[in-house]
Amino acid sequence: MAIAEVSIVPIGTGGTSVSGYVAGALDELKKSGLTYKLTPMGTIIEGDLDAVLAVIKAMHETPFAKGIERVYSTIKLDDRRDKDAHMDDKVASVKQKTDINT
Amino acid sequence: MAIAEVSIVPIGTGGTSVSGYVAGALDELKKSGLTYKLTPMGTIIEGDLDAVLAVIKAMHETPFAKGIERVYSTIKLDDRRDKDAHMDDKVASVKQKTDINT
Amino acid sequence: MAIAEVSIVPIGTGGTSVSGYVAGALDELKKSGLTYKLTPMGTIIEGDLDAVLAVIKAMHETPFAKGIERVYSTIKLDDRRDKDAHMDDKVASVKQKTDINT
Amino acid sequence: MAIAEVSIVPIGTGGTSVSGYVAGALDELKKSGLTYKLTPMGTIIEGDLDAVLAVIKAMHETPFAKGIERVYSTIKLDDRRDKDAHMDDKVASVKQKTDINT
Repeated sequence: MAIAEVSIVPIGTGGTSVSGYVAGALDELKKSGLTYKLTPMGTIIEGDLDAVLAVIKAMHETPFAKGIERVYSTIKLDDRRDKDAHMDDKVASVKQKTDINT
Repeated sequence: MAIAEVSIVPIGTGGTSVSGYVAGALDELKKSGLTYKLTPMGTIIEGDLDAVLAVIKAMHETPFAKGIERVYSTIKLDDRRDKDAHMDDKVASVKQKTDINT
Repeated sequence: MAIAEVSIVPIGTGGTSVSGYVAGALDELKKSGLTYKLTPMGTIIEGDLDAVLAVIKAMHETPFAKGIERVYSTIKLDDRRDKDAHMDDKVASVKQKTDINT
Repeated sequence: MAIAEVSIVPIGTGGTSVSGYVAGALDELKKSGLTYKLTPMGTIIEGDLDAVLAVIKAMHETPFAKGIERVYSTIKLDDRRDKDAHMDDKVASVKQKTDINT
């Protein structure tokens, strides 16, 4: 089970907004049925490594289909094989260990 | 107003768990009073660019204080100056534009 | 033609050195025959997008084969389809435009 | 001694080329006197952590001075305190450990 985060940035949009392109990539992700979480800085996806990489590639393709000619994607891949790690467990594990509860 | 994401990875931990180190960095962040969101792949921080960079530096220092001798941090910085962008608005803006509602 | 950069960080090494793991990933890359450049912060690979993603996956697998149980990989993907972009051209294009020649 | 890599991506350029903006950031870096290396996917900088972060911030500001209203910067920070690590040593250390010499 791998957990990945992907940020897709279209280059040459002519304006500062990129949310329409991110939404298009998200629609592609939703078709996959994989567990995901949209954050203010990227989309986190959990699943089998091959399935995760395949959907990231499909998401990366979506701005091109809308006429963009350069896409800059950043992917972080956290792959742990000693236990079945899930994205929600990661956050819970950190919260449990904080000293300052706010 | 800048929005940043930071992931702090201690190297040479002798085990696969890093959540204790992430919790230590989070405690440092909480002291700053900046708006933040903990995600499964990083911590997102919103604020004045100088304040955000200062707290990221302080967070990056925390594993060293626990005896770690190498820290690998990844920072993404999304800095928009045409409008006052907030992290929650970014997610709302994408959700509004998706075609597939699940 | 896509240009990607990958950094592979093994977690739980018990020591600060990771160069042996990076070398193992590089050996995997060399088998692919793709054009690459090793830098102090990652490995840059140029080629067809599918071929690049396939070799990055193979590189990401190499620390597991050496007994590591968690691998954290960061991938940047710069994919330009309006012209045939090569990694050396990118550096040359920037150098040509600098004002300070040092 | 920290080693960092920064990639500065201007959003809303209206075209696919970003090299002019990267060159502007590089000119800012050159003024600092810090050791650096320009790669096809970013700029690697070596030095005292505070000095490195200060110049990265100055580099990140340069596209705004040229009229860009959103800048997306990615920073990787490899900070090792058990020995005086230099960027060229990192590459040499990996090369020494590869099995396939090509």
